[in-house]
Formats: sequence, C-alpha cells, structure tokens
Amino acid sequence: MLSVKEAVYSLLQDSERLVGQESVELIHACGRTLAAGVTAPIDVPPADNSAMDGYALRRADWENEDHTIPVSQRITAGLVPQALTPGSAARIFTGAEVPTGADTVVMQEHCEQYGDAVRILKMPAAGANIRRRGQDLFSGQPVLREGQRLRPQDLGLAASLGLATVPVYRPLKVAIMSTGDELRDPGDELQPGQIYNSNRYIMKAQLEAWGFEVLDIGIARDDPAAVRELMLKAASMADLVMTSGGVSVGEEDHVKAVVESLGSIDLWRIAIKPGKPFAFGRIAEKPFIGLPGNPVSVFATLLVIARPYLFACQGITDSAVHPGTQTALFNQKASQREDYLRVRACDRGVELFPNQSSGVLFSTTWGDGLVRQKSGEEIREGSPVDYLPFAAFN
Amino acid sequence: MLSVKEAVYSLLQDSERLVGQESVELIHACGRTLAAGVTAPIDVPPADNSAMDGYALRRADWENEDHTIPVSQRITAGLVPQALTPGSAARIFTGAEVPTGADTVVMQEHCEQYGDAVRILKMPAAGANIRRRGQDLFSGQPVLREGQRLRPQDLGLAASLGLATVPVYRPLKVAIMSTGDELRDPGDELQPGQIYNSNRYIMKAQLEAWGFEVLDIGIARDDPAAVRELMLKAASMADLVMTSGGVSVGEEDHVKAVVESLGSIDLWRIAIKPGKPFAFGRIAEKPFIGLPGNPVSVFATLLVIARPYLFACQGITDSAVHPGTQTALFNQKASQREDYLRVRACDRGVELFPNQSSGVLFSTTWGDGLVRQKSGEEIREGSPVDYLPFAAFN
Repeated sequence: MLSVKEAVYSLLQDSERLVGQESVELIHACGRTLAAGVTAPIDVPPADNSAMDGYALRRADWENEDHTIPVSQRITAGLVPQALTPGSAARIFTGAEVPTGADTVVMQEHCEQYGDAVRILKMPAAGANIRRRGQDLFSGQPVLREGQRLRPQDLGLAASLGLATVPVYRPLKVAIMSTGDELRDPGDELQPGQIYNSNRYIMKAQLEAWGFEVLDIGIARDDPAAVRELMLKAASMADLVMTSGGVSVGEEDHVKAVVESLGSIDLWRIAIKPGKPFAFGRIAEKPFIGLPGNPVSVFATLLVIARPYLFACQGITDSAVHPGTQTALFNQKASQREDYLRVRACDRGVELFPNQSSGVLFSTTWGDGLVRQKSGEEIREGSPVDYLPFAAFN
Repeated sequence: MLSVKEAVYSLLQDSERLVGQESVELIHACGRTLAAGVTAPIDVPPADNSAMDGYALRRADWENEDHTIPVSQRITAGLVPQALTPGSAARIFTGAEVPTGADTVVMQEHCEQYGDAVRILKMPAAGANIRRRGQDLFSGQPVLREGQRLRPQDLGLAASLGLATVPVYRPLKVAIMSTGDELRDPGDELQPGQIYNSNRYIMKAQLEAWGFEVLDIGIARDDPAAVRELMLKAASMADLVMTSGGVSVGEEDHVKAVVESLGSIDLWRIAIKPGKPFAFGRIAEKPFIGLPGNPVSVFATLLVIARPYLFACQGITDSAVHPGTQTALFNQKASQREDYLRVRACDRGVELFPNQSSGVLFSTTWGDGLVRQKSGEEIREGSPVDYLPFAAFN
C-alpha cells in the first residue's frame, strides 16, 4: 500500500498545468491563480507623506520646543504642495504629501495654533511622523508570485500598485460523473433499492469552492456502453474527468474496464482511512481520477489526495496545508492506515465524532475539521494532535 | 480602551439578523446560511444493504463454513430484491438491498461459485457485512442547524436525505465606500499627492468571500455635502454601510460629522494593533461601520472586529474562530494592545514578517495568517503561540 505522502507525491510528479492564461480586471480576480509574478512598478508610498495631522517644518531651523512659527500653506491629502517657504511651517493632514524643504511633522496634539502662526509645545526628532517614499515597497521589488491564488489582501496590494488588470490562469474545467443504477437525485421519489446521490453535491460544491469550472455530466447507469459514452463526452469537454464509485474490480463496476479501453487506469491502494479505493488514469489523453463510492471517502480523498494534484493542474504552485496543534479530548486506538478522524474544535481542544465509520456522512457535517492520526500511533486524551480545519483546505 | 473581546461582544449585543429568507435549489446553496434546521425525513440508508460484493443468506440455516448452497437470485444495486428462497443464497453487490429473509452477507473472497451454487469457505457471524437501515441517520434526527453556513459536505448530507431545495437567508447587502481626495483607482494616472485606493479591493473581495452582496458606492471626496449624499444613497440601497478612512476627529475627516447628522456614531478606542480607530453607528436606521483608513488596519479590523457582527446580521449563529497552536520562530516584545502579528507557517512553526508597521500591506500578502499576541505578553522563540490562518476567517 502507498502511504498518503507517497500517493500525493506520485500524483504531483505526474501533474502539469492544464490551463492557459487570460487577463482579468483586478476587481474580479479574487480566488484566481496569478499567471505571472508581479514586481512593484512604483514606490509605495509614491512620495513622503504625513503619518499624522500636524505641522510640517525643517527640523534644523528650530533648536527645540517652544517656537512660534508662521504657517505658510495648508496641505490636505490629494493636494500638490508648494515647496516650504523657509522659516515657516505647513499645516498638514494624514496622508498628505510632505512639501519639499520639510523633513519633520509635529503632531497637532503638541502644537497650539494662533491665527496664522503655530506654537510648538514639543519638538520631535528630525524625520518624525513621515512615511517615506518607498518605505512599504520599492519600485522593482517582487511582491506577488506566479502560481499563487489571489486573496482579498493580494488584490489590495495590486491595487496599491495601480494594477487595473492581472494575468491569471483560466479556471480548470473538471467533468464530474457518478455511477450506479441505485442513484436518484434529490426531489425524485425513492423506489425500493435506491438511494439519493450525495457525491455529486459534495464534488461540485467543493470543486467550485476551489475556483474550478465544473461540468456536471450526470449519473452513468451500470452499463459499459452508457459509461463509455459519458466518459468520452466528459473527456472531450473538460481538462480532467472525475468519477465517484464503480472503480473497484467487482462484476458490476464498469468504470475500470471502460477507462482501460479508452486509455489507461491504475487502481491505487492508499493507506488512508476513510479513503480507498482510488483510481488514476487517462481517457483520450485527459487525466482521470476515480474517487471511491462512499461519500465520506469521496470527501476525504478529495481534500487529502486529489486536491494537491488538481491545484497543480490549475497552475497553483503551493498547496501545502500546515496543521496546527490541538489537544485531543478523546482516546483513539492505533490504526494501520493514516486515519483522518472527523472532529470538532472547542475552547479546550478537539472532540471526536463518536462513529468514525466511513459510511456516516454526518461525521463530516457535525465536524469542523480532521485530526490526522499517523499509522501505528495511538491517541491519548490530553495529548497534542495534528488538527486540519476543513477551512484550511480552501 | 475596550479590549478586542469587549468590542466584539458589544457589537454582537447590538446585532440582529437583517435579512429575510428564501428558498434555493440545493445545488446552488453552498456558502448560504440555513434559515431553518433540518431533521432527517427518512432513514439513511433507507433499507438494509450490502457493504460488500458477496452472497446473502440466513445465517441460522448454516452451521459453519464449507457449505454448498444453491444461488436463487442476483441483486445488483438499484434492483428490488425478491424475498430470499429458504435454503438458498442470493448473489449480491455492494450497495444492493438485502432481501427479506437474509441476515448475513458472506464476502465473495470467502466463497467459490460453481454454476448455480456457491461454496462458503469461511462463514462470518450473523449480521456481517450489512449496513442497517437508519444506521447513519434515523428519521427525525436533527442534522443541520438554523444559522449554519452550508459547506460541500452539508450539501451532500442534505442530498442524501432527498432535499432538492433548502430555506436560506438572502445575502446581506453591504454598501462600501472609501473617503479621501487623494484616492485614485488603479488604471488612472497618479498625480502628485495621490495614492491608489486599495481598501475598496480588500473590502469588496473579503465581503464577497463571506457570501455578502457588495454595493460599491465609490470614493467620497473630502467634502461634507458629497459624503452626505453618498451616505444616504448607500443607506437606502443596503442593509448596512461600511466606510474606510475619515472617521477620526481631524478637520479633514468629515465622515463622523455627517454620520452624526444622519443618525449616530460612536468612535471606539479598541486595544488592537493594527486597528484603531473604529466607528460604529447608524445612518437612517441602518448600521454603520467605519473602518480605519490604513489598509492593514482595514484588513485586521474586518477579520477580527467586524466579521462576527456581519455574520450575526446575516443570521449566522456561530462565528467563532478557534486558533491552533504553533511554535514561534521569532521573539516579540510585549505590547499594551492585543497585537495581530502577520506570520507565515512553515514545517517548523510560524515566521514573523520583519516589518509589523501597520503601514505595510505587504505583511498581509507575504503572510498566511495572524498570531494573536495578548496584551502584556512577550513572545519568545520556541514558545507556543495562538495561530489564526487567514483561511480560518472564511
């Protein structure tokens, strides 16, 4: 059996970016993947500006506090200042550009204004209360990386540099399909022997949350011809095909034979719980991922095994999730596989959902994250554990 | 000064849900807030089904292994089975309904089929390999809470219960506005004294990531009449008005006086860094939030102070973020306020961005989360710290 680490590594080795690039308006770029690194085209701030409301002056002209100085101009944010008249001070406001000739701002709390003059009660050191040109970023400094997903603060940074558009990779197109004659969609009447299709909803919503374009191909009946027709359709429309169910070697599992006839397929035995079986292959040159049929296993393998590969296909260069440490509020016996336990954080630590059977989807909705229990390691109440909030996989 | 905890608590005390409810198709409900709790309308699974490919039989009829039994029917998933013919076994596949009269499934690896009969090599205990009706969820069991935001797995669970639509709250409408004559939009030419407006991008993208509808009102010039006109427009269109900048008491900060004339405003001094000043009030009965002008402070107060309040206005009942513990790879002196340090996680712990000045937006794009440094507490390299990944605020 492959360890989780080996499986993820193998998939990454076999991955390549499957999408080209396009240009989008910055205001619509959140969640998109940057297709080229950004270096600052200007200094930020673009000029020395005042960090305070106060008075700008040339420090060397005034020995100490307790000077009364004529006020020669008033500079609000957005105004172009005049050069400072020698021997004077300029009234200045937060964010306003410091005039040439001034090198210090005295905060207004340390001043008293009398008509056209100001008395300095407490003189600061030279350079005080000025945000220097280029102090945040200098022109030419690398600031955003190719292959990073843009977050709200990244858009803010790009905006501060004046970028109205950014180059991004177009969204990865993932075709999804479920297999099984027993599956019905919610809203339909359930006949004896049938169950509702939940994997479709988990897969579509999770893939869309990652910014992919999802092509929902539907349910393939348990019939090789039907599976084959849908597979070819999916591969022709999408960058990648993903199924749930039907990848084991049972006589009623047709996916394996069909994918083999259209390309190649490997069944992977991965030491993960919940999680096996997992299949990887190609259909007409397009990557194929076969998730398990069980909803909890679909969810777990999607987050832990498929996500790093999918991110690489999207051109995302770093998909690492760094677990935080939490305190276990439960005991759990060692397991041969790497277990991803469904847990919920509270103020004292993380609680375990009592039924960790991979059949119980409720464990993932009750919980807010996973505890990674390494193979062979027992968990004792009160001991530290690796905790991965579901949100960390976004 | 208010502590962060007191500020968040005060805002929550003053909050109420501002949105009504509507019904949406389940497939489009990810990220929406559930407007009514869900109890399971059916048992899951709806009938006993097989956990394996194998043979179903009545255990009491067969003493031990090494029996050869006639096979009376073949049940694939989705088929309605016949009652089991006494003295026979039924061929059965994973997920298929167990026929009346059978109580045990023998996995096919423990059988040999000869024509129309099967030889049992290893007989399991009674009840083996059957997933019982209602074992995951029983009809009437509460499964999803009013006020919870729906995640991919929650949609999966609702789908497994057959729900085609769910009642949700309509998205909160937040009007955003920036103030300052010095602000220009990216793409415009920057004149001396001007800077680009980054707050608009941070606010819009973050609020949309939380599922709110953002009405982007634009930039208000530093002029009371202009600010007043935009404020009234914003309050008439949105559930809530949010500005950045202009809320301090300087002579060029008009927001405070305008909001006061249209309703009420309190300036809050919150012991948070980066972060002050923060304003809260009402404009024509609509809540008003005035964020600081500084982009790093906008980002930090949006996540830490405004988010729990906004979530409550959306009808979300739980906005708690549970920090994980990480190892500090840096030293940091104690501070009087609660500091939210911009850090980045790596395998060994969290690294500090070297310049924690609230002017440097780059700290938030370099980083992947915040370390919460409590007031008066020094951080020593190697010691445990509270780490809040940015993703945890989603």
